[in-house]
Amino acid sequence: MVTIKDIASRLGIAPSTVSKGLNDANDISPDLKKLVLDTAIEMGYVTKKMKKETRKRLCVFIENMLYEKPDDFGFDILLGFRQAAIRDNWEVHIVPMTPVLQMKEPYDRYMVRNKYHGGFLVGFALKDPWMKQLENTTIPTVLFDNYIKRNPNVAYIGTDSFEGIDLAIDHLYELGHTHIALLNGSKDSMVTANRYDAYISSMQNHNLDIDEDLIAYGYYVEESAKYHLKDLLEHGATAIICGNDLLAIGALKECKKLHIRVPENLSIIGYDNLPAAALFKPGITTISQDRLDLGKNSYAALYWLIDKVPISRSLLRPTLILRETTGPAPFLKSNKILPKEKELIN
Amino acid sequence: MVTIKDIASRLGIAPSTVSKGLNDANDISPDLKKLVLDTAIEMGYVTKKMKKETRKRLCVFIENMLYEKPDDFGFDILLGFRQAAIRDNWEVHIVPMTPVLQMKEPYDRYMVRNKYHGGFLVGFALKDPWMKQLENTTIPTVLFDNYIKRNPNVAYIGTDSFEGIDLAIDHLYELGHTHIALLNGSKDSMVTANRYDAYISSMQNHNLDIDEDLIAYGYYVEESAKYHLKDLLEHGATAIICGNDLLAIGALKECKKLHIRVPENLSIIGYDNLPAAALFKPGITTISQDRLDLGKNSYAALYWLIDKVPISRSLLRPTLILRETTGPAPFLKSNKILPKEKELIN
Repeated sequence: MVTIKDIASRLGIAPSTVSKGLNDANDISPDLKKLVLDTAIEMGYVTKKMKKETRKRLCVFIENMLYEKPDDFGFDILLGFRQAAIRDNWEVHIVPMTPVLQMKEPYDRYMVRNKYHGGFLVGFALKDPWMKQLENTTIPTVLFDNYIKRNPNVAYIGTDSFEGIDLAIDHLYELGHTHIALLNGSKDSMVTANRYDAYISSMQNHNLDIDEDLIAYGYYVEESAKYHLKDLLEHGATAIICGNDLLAIGALKECKKLHIRVPENLSIIGYDNLPAAALFKPGITTISQDRLDLGKNSYAALYWLIDKVPISRSLLRPTLILRETTGPAPFLKSNKILPKEKELIN
Repeated sequence: MVTIKDIASRLGIAPSTVSKGLNDANDISPDLKKLVLDTAIEMGYVTKKMKKETRKRLCVFIENMLYEKPDDFGFDILLGFRQAAIRDNWEVHIVPMTPVLQMKEPYDRYMVRNKYHGGFLVGFALKDPWMKQLENTTIPTVLFDNYIKRNPNVAYIGTDSFEGIDLAIDHLYELGHTHIALLNGSKDSMVTANRYDAYISSMQNHNLDIDEDLIAYGYYVEESAKYHLKDLLEHGATAIICGNDLLAIGALKECKKLHIRVPENLSIIGYDNLPAAALFKPGITTISQDRLDLGKNSYAALYWLIDKVPISRSLLRPTLILRETTGPAPFLKSNKILPKEKELIN
């Protein structure tokens, strides 16, 4: 079990200072208090105050996403949420969710019955039964990567797709690429649609021609890449921006099979900066979403929704992490396989 | 001078409870504490704690906008910001700004010299000297209605133009309007561009034809409307969505001159819900931005920027306030002045 001493030695401060931070004493600076609380939550420390039954509760529902191990996409999102919520002494429950469970009880009734003041929904799909109900919910609710029209009780939280795609296109443009493809995720997702819009707008801002043949929709899984890679190459792509890191990994594996060298013949950019993007050989250049910050920002939005401030959307800035899969555009030679060349191959 | 008793009687609670709220006592509920602080700030009460020299400071810079009287556009924005900031015991300075003052000292140096931890800029124009500097500032900064690319220290705060324009078009569409004009504000503003995009996308979603002749750009002042009204009517507009309430007032005055009845012959919608929109005869249907909430949300974004969470944009939901300037589309008759009719008039 984690003790106050453990936290103190991790932070290199006196146990009495940790104790002050945990007990909201007045003679400790707000910044240090935050650091103590952040660390306590991260290490799994539980204070007496946290055990009190009278604490107000928030609930995080998570679906279609791993979150139990530090490498899982959802792990840091939940950690950031809990770190921010503890500053206001909220009790946070984490509840794995499924469509079947959602059909058993309407969202609002579930929340009221369990005395939750607000909900944070992560990984939900548009077809989930509760999603439709969110159009009219009276419960303050934050949605990760999904948007509900009109309802002032629901906020959308995510990372700015426009800036993310623009960072990627900027980087490729500076490397001399003009035939930049977008291997997007599944069509029924709001994020997919945003990234398409972002791609069009950024290509136009860079004065690059838009070729619809360089835009493909797959699914957000590795296997999806192989169905599109060849086609994108045949249409002249010298760089591909993928909807997530899994698609980028799939594309890289397919390149290996087809003896296409990355980045010499083709540059590839992923999205999300999953731990796998750094570990893969070659390391994958990717658009990073800081998931700890996403969690904190989700709590922030929920705090203000509970206070009746009708936040519609609150987006974070992405960053571009440069690794080994992007390089100068192939010099004086397009990847396009000309009809004659094709004959030679066949 | 405002006393604790005054606050107590305004809220209908005991002075001792007010005192607890002001002094951050533990035996008062967080909600009541917030209410006490909100009211104290609104009434201009100053506690001993607030006078302490050691408090951390934020600065609000305001330009091109009135804010001293409750009816002024900026008043509630500043009030909401201060109400939210006091919860974390920040000292807030309000500084009127001009381009000349900005040229005297760079933004970052001004902030560091005055020991400000963060800034909130309201009413700044793109051409302001400090705006360019914000691209590289290291000071946590929130901008109202303006967006700075890439810099993780700067967040954009505003109201969701897409939802605002969509609410207006929805309302007009249900009243039978198909020839809906947009009398937008000045072209060099980000908000103007957003509202144009929002107009195009909402018209398309309603399956309404887009006629570029029904889109005009003026300035965000009353006088601007008269230069466009006739032209929009000649191109068949039965409804006009205006970029702000001042343009709507200008349009209404021009209608009176031209003997065009509102809403019988023409529906008009404003933007912002200024006090003047309610007081004008007829009362102006308008898209409302809650300015108190804008202020609170601006502080919220600044709080998290100071904590290194790179908020890019955080937008509030607008609401549509129905008054007297919108009605059913003119039945079986377009406003279009046909060439023959024109001859009759001349």
